[in-house]
Amino acid sequence: MTQTLTRIALASRPVGWPTQENFSVETGPVPEPGPGQFLARTIWLSLDPYMRGRMDDGPSYAAPVPLGGTMEGGTVSEVIASNHPDYAPGDIVVGRLGWASHGVSDGTGVRKVDPNLAPLSTALGVLGMPGHTAYAGLNAVAQARAGETLVVSAASGAVGSLAVQLGKAMGMTVIGVAGGAAKCAFVTDELGADACFDHRADETAKDLAARIAKAAPNGVDVYFENVAGKTLEAVIPNMAQHGRIAICGMISLYSGNTMGDRNQLPWIWRSILVKRLRVQGFLVGDHMDIQARFLEEVGPLVKAGKVKFRETVAEGLEAAPEAFIALLRGDNFGKQLVRVGADPA
Amino acid sequence: MTQTLTRIALASRPVGWPTQENFSVETGPVPEPGPGQFLARTIWLSLDPYMRGRMDDGPSYAAPVPLGGTMEGGTVSEVIASNHPDYAPGDIVVGRLGWASHGVSDGTGVRKVDPNLAPLSTALGVLGMPGHTAYAGLNAVAQARAGETLVVSAASGAVGSLAVQLGKAMGMTVIGVAGGAAKCAFVTDELGADACFDHRADETAKDLAARIAKAAPNGVDVYFENVAGKTLEAVIPNMAQHGRIAICGMISLYSGNTMGDRNQLPWIWRSILVKRLRVQGFLVGDHMDIQARFLEEVGPLVKAGKVKFRETVAEGLEAAPEAFIALLRGDNFGKQLVRVGADPA
Repeated sequence: MTQTLTRIALASRPVGWPTQENFSVETGPVPEPGPGQFLARTIWLSLDPYMRGRMDDGPSYAAPVPLGGTMEGGTVSEVIASNHPDYAPGDIVVGRLGWASHGVSDGTGVRKVDPNLAPLSTALGVLGMPGHTAYAGLNAVAQARAGETLVVSAASGAVGSLAVQLGKAMGMTVIGVAGGAAKCAFVTDELGADACFDHRADETAKDLAARIAKAAPNGVDVYFENVAGKTLEAVIPNMAQHGRIAICGMISLYSGNTMGDRNQLPWIWRSILVKRLRVQGFLVGDHMDIQARFLEEVGPLVKAGKVKFRETVAEGLEAAPEAFIALLRGDNFGKQLVRVGADPA
Repeated sequence: MTQTLTRIALASRPVGWPTQENFSVETGPVPEPGPGQFLARTIWLSLDPYMRGRMDDGPSYAAPVPLGGTMEGGTVSEVIASNHPDYAPGDIVVGRLGWASHGVSDGTGVRKVDPNLAPLSTALGVLGMPGHTAYAGLNAVAQARAGETLVVSAASGAVGSLAVQLGKAMGMTVIGVAGGAAKCAFVTDELGADACFDHRADETAKDLAARIAKAAPNGVDVYFENVAGKTLEAVIPNMAQHGRIAICGMISLYSGNTMGDRNQLPWIWRSILVKRLRVQGFLVGDHMDIQARFLEEVGPLVKAGKVKFRETVAEGLEAAPEAFIALLRGDNFGKQLVRVGADPA
């Protein structure tokens, strides 16, 4: 094999918004798989907001990407050479081989994908980590129940769009919040939310809160939090007693938004006490015990076309940095993917 | 009966710290119990920080005290006349008859007290609402477990002192935070905490955080929150992954402390996500289902002298406003009570 490996490395740590200069394209020889390893070529790369945190050199739930290191990310790949007894050339695997054309793995954190179940890209979206995240957040974390009212922020996104649909499927009233009229139309018309509000509309958090109050006259029982910022400010006053907030992300804060100068900690702390809220941060990795149940429940829905999803595809690995920056701005619509290599023949 | 009823009414709503002028002493005839009611004379009145919230005219978990209305509060009383089949003169009851020398009740929210179990005043403290609160917060809310590390703020107070002792009894490492060296000495020497830090010491939240870090090298698994403010700022960076914060109160915020100008909401929100914390507000009234279990477990410990408690007693109903203001300043030591009437003969 005389193929070339291409990878995207972290060139420098961003201050606030990342720029193209924070990334570099590196090339080198494709590695040989060692004993017990396999080599795979990347077909799809997933781009996700959490990656912004990996670019910083501070404490987080995972170690930062080192300078010069390959950016981390979930991938769908085809095994092309293997010294691993469980993997053979032609196998399709979902794993974390990073922003690279090829990767080697010993199988840790890798799962084989049935290519007949659904399009391969869904293993990174609705049937992958984002879908599993939505499922875990609603069920294991927020313990959402039929008849309750759910607000989902970033409702047209990879995680949010499944949270909306799972909420509707279990008999909840679902209110989405998304950025822009087109996304909101998708959330109501295609995903089936009862209402969706555009946080980019020219209005204050108070205005948004008033609109949510109208749509949720008995209050919000579950808030699936992906964004923080103005949406959080608007949801808190609408939370019902004994409401639950599942904090999945806070994309509006990732690049330096401080939510203004007033110290809102006393206000939020008091709201949690007075309404006896339960606020819980979570990471899908803490909920691997329900992954099988998630795939069993949601896999057939996807195959049957009963769960809708959108994808935004960037073409070619070199397009990943620009697509990632756009993702942080909210320019994507649904799951952001990078097409790195062709589907298997 | 030609006795006089004395009561303390809310004369005006405070702005920030309450003052004597916010209260008035009112007198009138002692009411007759109606059908199905009993009349009781007050022996002990409990003063608690939550009463500050009842003085405001905003949304909270309970309706505000109306202007001119009797201040609300828990009481231990002796039944002196009864038209209620379950209550007879001489019965000792704990209830919510308010800041008054006498009260009538139909029995709602009233519980008979066994005067042989422990001193009557404990029905308002370690065996009453504060004790039940500590028990519910640790067990039902935070799900504290042996081997974990617990931080209790206001650790010498009515709720905190039992939280410390219950934590030690279940095999936790317990760190108290209290205001002043005398209280801290009580928390370690009498209550058995492994450490106690004085939040009034001349140091920043960062200094306090460093001291907690030394005492909790593996992080804080459970924070029993009574105060917010500097203590909260110091505990958050020390929280362990999957830590739980049971929010019982936030006494430092009740009279207008805003915790400074920097907006700490993004910081706390990010901490909850990154460490996958669970933050839950609670009210003892939501946990009446475990009251019997609490009394069964803790009652014998109190009778056997295995649970220590402190009381600060103000003499006479008219002393209640001043004692309440002092309570908000943290001048009390342990449970703040008002001796309204004599023990039964």
